[in-house]
Amino acid sequence: MGEFELIRRFFDRGPARRSPLGIGDDCALIAPREHGQIAVTSDLLIEGRHFFADVLPADLGHKALAVNLSDLAAMGAEPFGFLLSVSLPGIDEAWLEGFTAGLFAIADRHRCELLGGDTTAGPLSINITAFGHVPAGAALRRDGAQPGDDLWVSGEIGGPSWAVGERYAGRGGAISATLAARLDRPEPRVALGIELRHLASAAIDLSDGLLGDLGHIVDRSRVGAEVDEAALPIAAELVAAAPQRAIEQALSGGDEYELLFTAPPENRSAIAALGQRLELPLARIGRIRDGASIVVQDARGRPRASLPRSHEHFG
Amino acid sequence: MGEFELIRRFFDRGPARRSPLGIGDDCALIAPREHGQIAVTSDLLIEGRHFFADVLPADLGHKALAVNLSDLAAMGAEPFGFLLSVSLPGIDEAWLEGFTAGLFAIADRHRCELLGGDTTAGPLSINITAFGHVPAGAALRRDGAQPGDDLWVSGEIGGPSWAVGERYAGRGGAISATLAARLDRPEPRVALGIELRHLASAAIDLSDGLLGDLGHIVDRSRVGAEVDEAALPIAAELVAAAPQRAIEQALSGGDEYELLFTAPPENRSAIAALGQRLELPLARIGRIRDGASIVVQDARGRPRASLPRSHEHFG
Repeated sequence: MGEFELIRRFFDRGPARRSPLGIGDDCALIAPREHGQIAVTSDLLIEGRHFFADVLPADLGHKALAVNLSDLAAMGAEPFGFLLSVSLPGIDEAWLEGFTAGLFAIADRHRCELLGGDTTAGPLSINITAFGHVPAGAALRRDGAQPGDDLWVSGEIGGPSWAVGERYAGRGGAISATLAARLDRPEPRVALGIELRHLASAAIDLSDGLLGDLGHIVDRSRVGAEVDEAALPIAAELVAAAPQRAIEQALSGGDEYELLFTAPPENRSAIAALGQRLELPLARIGRIRDGASIVVQDARGRPRASLPRSHEHFG
Repeated sequence: MGEFELIRRFFDRGPARRSPLGIGDDCALIAPREHGQIAVTSDLLIEGRHFFADVLPADLGHKALAVNLSDLAAMGAEPFGFLLSVSLPGIDEAWLEGFTAGLFAIADRHRCELLGGDTTAGPLSINITAFGHVPAGAALRRDGAQPGDDLWVSGEIGGPSWAVGERYAGRGGAISATLAARLDRPEPRVALGIELRHLASAAIDLSDGLLGDLGHIVDRSRVGAEVDEAALPIAAELVAAAPQRAIEQALSGGDEYELLFTAPPENRSAIAALGQRLELPLARIGRIRDGASIVVQDARGRPRASLPRSHEHFG
């Protein structure tokens, strides 16, 4: 099977609906909205590093797009399209069917179309570039946090990163199906990001661990932050299984895909109402301060002496 | 060196100038022009497939962006930004310095900024996604060719693809410096593409070989085509070295990065004047016909019996 036949069979689903031109020309074309900007993000997944050869192809297809949609969510952007560049060791039709089933299921749910990309032979790697609409000036950047703002996080934290460690240790069978699904098929917080455009001052998605990602907000906004240990929405399964290291895990675990955001205190009730409407817990876990440091404090206000290191991709 | 330090040292050149937000947030932001569209394209280069380990890093940096700029040129788009996703077996500072020198030299010449991307450890691969502005409705698509249109090609053809073969055969030393430069540092026809917006009816860049790429125009436009052998602007070096297979090489060789385009006959003098202004030969090599077939004919109008196969990336 040649490259064109491969694209036709597995990737080309006919003319683009949400863009003027999709697959099949030298470029795809994107039509911006009036007074709109385009948010763009790109994530590269490599076999052996970001996933293993035995991952379910449908889970991989889901996750490859989900991590990009999570970046769009963190900017408050509304996804509409993506490019897929994939290098494949060979043409495994069953694998391609599974991969594209997972990919297109989440793509369709978010009305995010495949607009083009590239396909070649090589070691398995997947690079998706995703596009979203955002009104000019409304994007949630990392540099907007102000002293006095509250610090919030969506959902539960610590669960997926703990589950990864359990799998590495050969104890994957003990993870609940709910948590395994959160790990293998993370749900990007797209609706939350869009609603936060007018409520939050800064946002980021949790990919490098809570403290690492908070560090990005703090650096870019030139502020400091306090985190209240007792307010962290730690996954119940992690607390039950490893109570003595649950807080460290929740502070440092990567690949969680929740949103960490800051907002002025006057938006507290609106944010609480938003969480109820989306059926997504939103926890107020601290505040932005003057300065440049991050302090984690226990229930009595005493700072933690040492903070766990954050996740980095080269080590 | 961690990922953030790597990005800071080699890739981050300060705040974006032509876009509202570049490197360092969850997404980059693109500001469209009024009544404008955004052309996007992505090319993936894999070591051992698209280049070899001994390629000069500066040439690789040049070529990785050039192939994408060539796709933008073929749409008539004006480049302004790109994303770079790269997986590296390790951090080789001399290699990174060479690679980024070649990359940023061509990027700066085309005022095309690095806006973001991803960096990870893994087998060497380079995926660039490039963005260009094009007025709404003005993009040069593959599906606009009309029966009666002339068929044109820019520059010379057959040279780079022939030179690749010579290198494979261990005769690379006999290639002229000019041709080696065209092969290693192809110049995307960006200015030509922009000027053709109002003159051409369809365009494509030569990456799969002239007949292969003409096949894409013919398929998408639902037309046929005639190519005049005698009008092909075959590289003089190829004609001199291999006269008996020069035409086949010129018809089938990939990775040439010239533009193949169609235009109504009334634009002939404007196109000739454009070629003179850009100091770029533009050759009229045939015409678009009704039907669905491609015919190559010799100086006496006799069709070639068999046509060479085009280049494909999976075999």
